[in-house]
This record gives sequence, C-alpha cells and structure tokens, in this order.
Amino acid sequence: MSEFSDYMTRDLPTGLRLIEGGVTAARGFRAGTISCGIKAEAGTPDMALLVADAPCATAATFTTSKTAAHTVRVCKEHLAAGGYRTQAVIVNSGNANCSNGERGYRDAQRMTELTATKLGISDPNLVMVSSTGIIGRPLPMDRVEQGIAEIQVSASGGPDFARGIMTTDTRPKTVAVEFEVGDKTVRLGGSTKGVGMIYPNMATMLCYLTTDAAVEPAFLQDAMRRAVNDSFNMVCVDGDMSTNDSAFVFASGLAGNEPLREGVAGADTFVTALRYVTRYLAREMARDGEGATKLMIVNIHNAASDADARTAARDITRYIIWQCAVAGGDPNWGRLIAALGASKAAIEHDKLDIRLGDVLIVEHGVAADYDQAAAKQAMVGPDVYVDIDLHLGDFAATAWGCDLTHGYIDENATYTR
Amino acid sequence: MSEFSDYMTRDLPTGLRLIEGGVTAARGFRAGTISCGIKAEAGTPDMALLVADAPCATAATFTTSKTAAHTVRVCKEHLAAGGYRTQAVIVNSGNANCSNGERGYRDAQRMTELTATKLGISDPNLVMVSSTGIIGRPLPMDRVEQGIAEIQVSASGGPDFARGIMTTDTRPKTVAVEFEVGDKTVRLGGSTKGVGMIYPNMATMLCYLTTDAAVEPAFLQDAMRRAVNDSFNMVCVDGDMSTNDSAFVFASGLAGNEPLREGVAGADTFVTALRYVTRYLAREMARDGEGATKLMIVNIHNAASDADARTAARDITRYIIWQCAVAGGDPNWGRLIAALGASKAAIEHDKLDIRLGDVLIVEHGVAADYDQAAAKQAMVGPDVYVDIDLHLGDFAATAWGCDLTHGYIDENATYTR
Repeated sequence: MSEFSDYMTRDLPTGLRLIEGGVTAARGFRAGTISCGIKAEAGTPDMALLVADAPCATAATFTTSKTAAHTVRVCKEHLAAGGYRTQAVIVNSGNANCSNGERGYRDAQRMTELTATKLGISDPNLVMVSSTGIIGRPLPMDRVEQGIAEIQVSASGGPDFARGIMTTDTRPKTVAVEFEVGDKTVRLGGSTKGVGMIYPNMATMLCYLTTDAAVEPAFLQDAMRRAVNDSFNMVCVDGDMSTNDSAFVFASGLAGNEPLREGVAGADTFVTALRYVTRYLAREMARDGEGATKLMIVNIHNAASDADARTAARDITRYIIWQCAVAGGDPNWGRLIAALGASKAAIEHDKLDIRLGDVLIVEHGVAADYDQAAAKQAMVGPDVYVDIDLHLGDFAATAWGCDLTHGYIDENATYTR
Repeated sequence: MSEFSDYMTRDLPTGLRLIEGGVTAARGFRAGTISCGIKAEAGTPDMALLVADAPCATAATFTTSKTAAHTVRVCKEHLAAGGYRTQAVIVNSGNANCSNGERGYRDAQRMTELTATKLGISDPNLVMVSSTGIIGRPLPMDRVEQGIAEIQVSASGGPDFARGIMTTDTRPKTVAVEFEVGDKTVRLGGSTKGVGMIYPNMATMLCYLTTDAAVEPAFLQDAMRRAVNDSFNMVCVDGDMSTNDSAFVFASGLAGNEPLREGVAGADTFVTALRYVTRYLAREMARDGEGATKLMIVNIHNAASDADARTAARDITRYIIWQCAVAGGDPNWGRLIAALGASKAAIEHDKLDIRLGDVLIVEHGVAADYDQAAAKQAMVGPDVYVDIDLHLGDFAATAWGCDLTHGYIDENATYTR
C-alpha cells in the first residue's frame, strides 16, 4: 500500500500530497470492520464502523429515489435533529434494508441506538447509518446486534473500512491527501463502494469522507454538494439509480485551522481537495463497474450550457449499445451519433466533432479521413477516451462510464440466489 | 405459413379475422425484395420495395432524434410536397444513410427518383425511402442503382418483403387482418423490423402498414399517431433511440367503403384493427430483441395519470439490472422497487403491489408471504408478466421489453467489423 496508482497521481492538483490511511488519515477518526453473518459467505466483512473522537460538522447527500431505503430517512431525521453534527456511522452490507415497512425504519433506528450505547454517545441522533445489499429482506437483527457489540475500531482502520463496505466491488476504493491551510496541515480522505445500479442523482452510492479541517457547516454542505455534482453525479455503470445512495463528509476540526468559509485562506484549496477526492473515487467506481474491463472517459466540449454538457456526457456513458462497442473494441462511432441524437442536450448534427483518443473520427458530423487501425487502438483500453466538441458554446463536462460485458449480466442474473 | 401463432390469436379483438399476406394482403399493393450487395453477406436480401397501384393516403411518424437519418428528412419533405399521398416506398438494409452530410441527402433523394422512374411515377415526391444499418458510411450507389433497376414486385410479395427489411431480426414480423366496414370487407396488414436500439419516441423502427380501406387523411394520421403511441412507443429492447425510426401506413381505398372519419360506421373497427396490428408487431419486436430469450410484459395499474402509467411501464422495461434478472429467472423484485423509485412517475412506496405472473410478491411495498418456487416459475418464460398496482388513480398502460443476455452484447460488441 505504499505506492500510489497512476489513477491517483494523473489529475492530482498542485498543493495536494497523496497520503495513506483513507477515512482514518485525518486526525480524530477511527474505523474498523467485522464479519457478523449478514452475508452468506462466512468471513466476508459485512459491517463497518467509522467513529470520530467528538461530534463533527457533517454534510451529506442522498438518493432522490422515491423508494429510498429506511436508512436514508433515519439519516435525514438525525441530521436535522442533531444540527448537522454527527460522531459515527454504522454500515452493513449484504442487506439494503429497503422496502421493509415500519420494521425497516425501526431496525435502522435500532442500529443507531446500539451504536450510540456501545460508543458512549448520549444522543443516537449523532449516529448515521447505511445499508447496502439485497432489497426487501428484513435485517437479521440478532446478527446485527452481535456485530455492533463486537466490532472494533482503530486509528489505522481506514484500509479495512474500505474493504468492509464493498459489495460487488472487486477492489477497495480509497484515497487521502494532505495540504496546507494557512500554517496548518489538513488531511482529507475517504472511501466509496459501487458498483452496480450506478447512475446517481444528487447523490452517490455509499461514500464516507473525513477531514480534520475545521469547516463551517454551511460551507461544508455547499462544497460537498458541488463536489458530488461534478463527481458521483457524473458516473454511470448501468443507468440504474439505487435506493440507498448516500455520501457523507465528516469534519473533526482537529487541524486547528481557522474555520473554513468563503473568503478564508485555504478554503479554495479545501474545495479543490474535496473535488479531487470525490472525482477520483467516482472514476474508480466506473473503472470497477460490475463486469467492466474498460474505463470510459467522456469529455464534452463547447456545449451551449452547463446542463447540456453534463447531459450529453452522461447520455454517452449510459447508451448501452455503445457500451457494448467499447467492450468489443469497435470504434463504431455511429452509436455516438445516435446517442447524441437521442440526448436532450442541444446538439447540431453538422457541427459535431468526435475524437476517440487522439483520433479525429467525425468532423462536422460526417466521417473524417481517419486511420482505421489508430481508431481501433483507441478502443483497446484500459482507458477509452471519447472527446466530443459540440461547437455551440463554451461549457464543458466530464463523465465516467465503463463497458458492458457478460460479467455484468452474470453478476445480476441470479443476484438473490 | 398457414398457421397463426398464439401471439397473433391471444389478443385478437372480436370482429377481426387473421389472414395471410402481410403488406400485400390489402388490395392494390405489390412488394418484393432483392439482394444487391449492400450487406456483406452474399445473397442476403438488402433491398425491399412496396408499391401501390395508385397514390394512397399516407400517414407516418418518425424518430425525434436530432441526428435523424437523411431518409427521414426526405420523407418529411415529400409528404408535405405531395399532400400526404404516396405510391411507393424503397427500403435498403445494411446501411443507415445517416451522418453522411449533403451527400447522404442527395443519395436518399436519388433513391426516390430512380424508384419513381422505374415505376412510371411522374413525381418523386410520391416515393418514400427508408434505410437501416450502419451509420456514417456513404451508400454504395452503384449497387443501390442496380438493385432498384432489378427488383421485382408481386401481389404475393408480402412475406418476402417482411424478410427483406430484416437486419438483426431472427424472424420476420408480419401480420394481417380483415374485417367489415359497412357492407365492405377491409384488409389491413403490415411488417416491421427491429431489434436493437429500440426505445422509440413518437416513432418506431421501420414499419410499413397497408390497407385497402378508404380513409380520410386527417383521420388516418390521427389513428396512426394514437396506435403508435400505444404500441411502438411502448417497446424497449435497450433504451437506445435510433436515428432511422419510421412508421408508415398506406391506404389504397380499393375496398370501396365510405371514407373513414370520426363517426362513420366502421371507423372504430379500423382504429381497433390498427391498434391490434401495431401492438402485435411491437410485441414481436420486443420478443425478438437482440439476444432476447424472454418477452417481458409490464402492466401498470391504477396510476395517477396516463403519462405516469406509460412512464412507469417503460422505466421497468429499460432498467437493465432487472432485464438481467429476467434473463437469469431470478424473481429479484428489489430491482423493480428500485426502478419505480427512480422513475419520474408518481409512486408511493407503501402503496405498491407487485405480481410476477399470478404471484403476489409485494403488498403495500413490502414482501408478501409468497411461494418462492411459484415466483421462480413465473420467471421461466418465454413470457414474463410483471403487474404493478400503484393504487393512486385509474390509469393503466402496458409496455413490452425483453431480457438482457450475452447475445445482446455479442451482437453489438463488433457490429461494424
């Protein structure tokens, strides 16, 4: 774990340094996991706990699903009741605790109460809760209770935490950075899990970020909202929004800096760091999409509006017939033309320029005189770049997706068996 | 071809009789196909021609894609110029003639001119044109010209025509009925092709209907619009709208009935027949979706509005993680809950009742006490019924989809190779 991957370093903004530790990189946080038998596979971690030394300023975004999980309601109620200060989050995988009626709501509440009692936190409103897994089955509360009783946390538990929240992920997704705010060194790190039903809307799958920066709550919420909008809201694996998406950032304030708000020195750097961390984690989710063998990076240039740029970029990533072409390494750009034609974004057919990697493949909406072999090479992966110039304005956006393979189908054909 | 399948007979309205002949079942139409080398596979039909004895009242709907094929523009211009009367349609497969710039437009025009000349039709505006296949490659006009010169039509050419317009379809899709209008017997028949990039919007893939009924043009257009809305606009294979979708109905008037309009005896029966034929063909497209092994029939009951019923039904058919569960025969109803949560249709989680086949699997938004084996049996196919009661109003809708299999990916991973 002493090496940082190319995906971590390639877009690292100046002034940020990569560090180890994930959600426990920042001062004041401990984390850990346990296997308590919620998942069928014995020994697989299926519960994780993140704890702060004291209540933290907390910002969060949640799924906009109309069938949101019971945990989402509990978190929203607790955040409001606790003044957006929280001290812990308890997470289980293997069971989504969604569509379980009043029992599901009571079970989610109970998880926060048990966690508060264990940790000596007087108010269960200071505890967040997340669940991920199969929908519509009641939580096995005896196992959940035993898990909460036995789970241990430590200041070096970040990497374990990243593994503990995985479901169909093939690898943990975690990153941390440090940077200067005034004369203080601040740390920010986090972990996320994917990787099916990924098409978030104002939220993500489960994501936990921690920082030891002191941050004013309103500024933290606004910075988180903007970061999520440019990161998790620009990821697509399968176009399917989930019921449990939740993203949190916890700020302990132990770095001792002047509390960050608009205009305070270092606030911009914090926003940059938050953007970097969320975008890195978002891209990792796409790269590890269920069954994915290739990461797709779609850049829209010169759109008529910000919304158009985002819409067009996301529409490419969710056009499954193109995802199949990416899987097959087929530079079948007609699929891109069709995807753009079906998009609600403003486009003009005869203004479209399309590049696959460095190869200009469509110019003014018709085939350019390109080299077939080079076009195929651009589709080999592991990273497939699609750059589309709409020539209608000056707005840009990036979205991340992946290819669609047999592996995705196999993962989801018999998920509940 | 003397047998009518269960799919044809099961929803046949009273008063309609199934007959042979497809697009040439109605009096006054001839059709035929030829292989002229547009497709790589030698001997595969790649051109089809449908001709009426005289100009016909014609109604049509087209894709709303912003990158529509050149043929779509030509057809719209010709319909307007010719007063919505046409006499022939020339179709090629293997090449979509889309994204080819001005050359593509000229080639589409040229196809109508060559066809008009061959048939002795004085005005090329009386000729429609369709193309389907790979996007972004210029039509091989030498082969197209030779094909138009050599193609033959006959009054028994309907079944050939149905095969001639196929692309990735595994079987032709064609049906015809006859019924009484006053003291006259009227015939209506047609063919369609699918079966990838199927998520039409105010249009369909290629569809050609013929009738010998006399029908007033405005009534014909309105009846066609309504029929398409309840049929082709309710089909999903992959959620991907195409650039070439076009649906036509040609009315020769040779049945000699009083021209149909609102209030004329038999007009309702004609509308019923048009609805039956389009819905049958739409369902056949879903059943033959690329790689499909199962037909999915989604019925939404008691929605708050007509739009909500349609939206919810279509959202289920395009939720690919559920399409995978259908493929695997996994009654994983959590995917349905998630799909409804992500839908823009009004839903209330705790009012949802869901049936798979006859099995009540979700009641008031939570798991019903159902038999697991029966639920699995409902997913075996070849027809998988999903019935969802929203309990919010009294609007209903039906959408058709299919499962998502390795076959779909294989079809589209190397389409242009």
